[in-house]
Amino acid sequence: MTGHRADARRNYQRILAVAEAEVAAHGAEASLEQIARTAGVGSATVRRHFPTRRALLEAVFQERIEALCEHARRLSAAEDGRAALLEWLHAFVLYAVSARGFAHILSYEPPTEEPSPDSCGSRIETAATPLLQRAIRDKAVAPHVTFHDLLTLAVGIALATEHHTDPDAQAGRLFRLAVEGLSPARGAAGDGDVPALRQP
Amino acid sequence: MTGHRADARRNYQRILAVAEAEVAAHGAEASLEQIARTAGVGSATVRRHFPTRRALLEAVFQERIEALCEHARRLSAAEDGRAALLEWLHAFVLYAVSARGFAHILSYEPPTEEPSPDSCGSRIETAATPLLQRAIRDKAVAPHVTFHDLLTLAVGIALATEHHTDPDAQAGRLFRLAVEGLSPARGAAGDGDVPALRQP
Repeated sequence: MTGHRADARRNYQRILAVAEAEVAAHGAEASLEQIARTAGVGSATVRRHFPTRRALLEAVFQERIEALCEHARRLSAAEDGRAALLEWLHAFVLYAVSARGFAHILSYEPPTEEPSPDSCGSRIETAATPLLQRAIRDKAVAPHVTFHDLLTLAVGIALATEHHTDPDAQAGRLFRLAVEGLSPARGAAGDGDVPALRQP
Repeated sequence: MTGHRADARRNYQRILAVAEAEVAAHGAEASLEQIARTAGVGSATVRRHFPTRRALLEAVFQERIEALCEHARRLSAAEDGRAALLEWLHAFVLYAVSARGFAHILSYEPPTEEPSPDSCGSRIETAATPLLQRAIRDKAVAPHVTFHDLLTLAVGIALATEHHTDPDAQAGRLFRLAVEGLSPARGAAGDGDVPALRQP
């Protein structure tokens, strides 16, 4: 490794360590200028390593995303497909509630553009989609539900509860409510404005 | 009205008009300094009229909150209690998706402290709680569900979808999913880690 490369590598590590602390303290809105100042580098150096705020945030959350992916892969062999999907999704919600900024970047994940294959959302989707597919095969989840629906609902629960006094408890409560349904239709009659999503 | 009071009133109206434009453009993070500059007043004047960012945001959203409250009161006489609750909640979700910053301030509403009786959340709760109570009496919603649960879930759906390319469509889709349930338990068996919230 040349001296130049070693310097770049050290800068990268230092910026990332500072960014982890800043994001933990201030969430997704952490100041990039403050990160550069604390790391003792210029803003241009931060931008060279992390061209966008999202690139920086994805690097900060990398290890935990890998842990969530590994959790999903482990559960894919579980006996009960519904329980496996719900266990993983619950773990995802609790992580998103605890990691400031994590739900925030996922809420910006563009759902219609071609996602970068190593973005947070794509890596999680690749690892956990088999859990959804199996739950659909087991008829535990309606066939029109997409992984993006699951992820967005979980992200929403995290964003809405992260400032509560007991975020884990409130997030868990809303998660169970969304799993069971706020007010499932009892059949064809009485659906009001909400078309039935599941066969009665 | 004395000249001093008339000045104060004019300042208030001018700050509010500028704040509405800034919040529409930048959401809840709109810069208070920028609002003061554009309104041609000092930061101290902004703070005298609106001691906190939330006070400013609540003033910005006041009319639409009143419309949501009126909508809830009108629906309280509807024949179908479930349809009335779901119609109102759907309207709330769509408004929260469209009004930048609105879901954000509601997500900070402290759920355990004594809320101010004229805060956004309290006024909405007072107006719409009868819809929930009636849906619970009609057994369309489980008795343990609180108005705060409904509001938080709706706020979460809005926060998670407001940056999507078609926020209304995605928010409506998630709303229906949460109403019907992602994966309702079919009985006592097979509940996995998620305790049944409704009687089977």
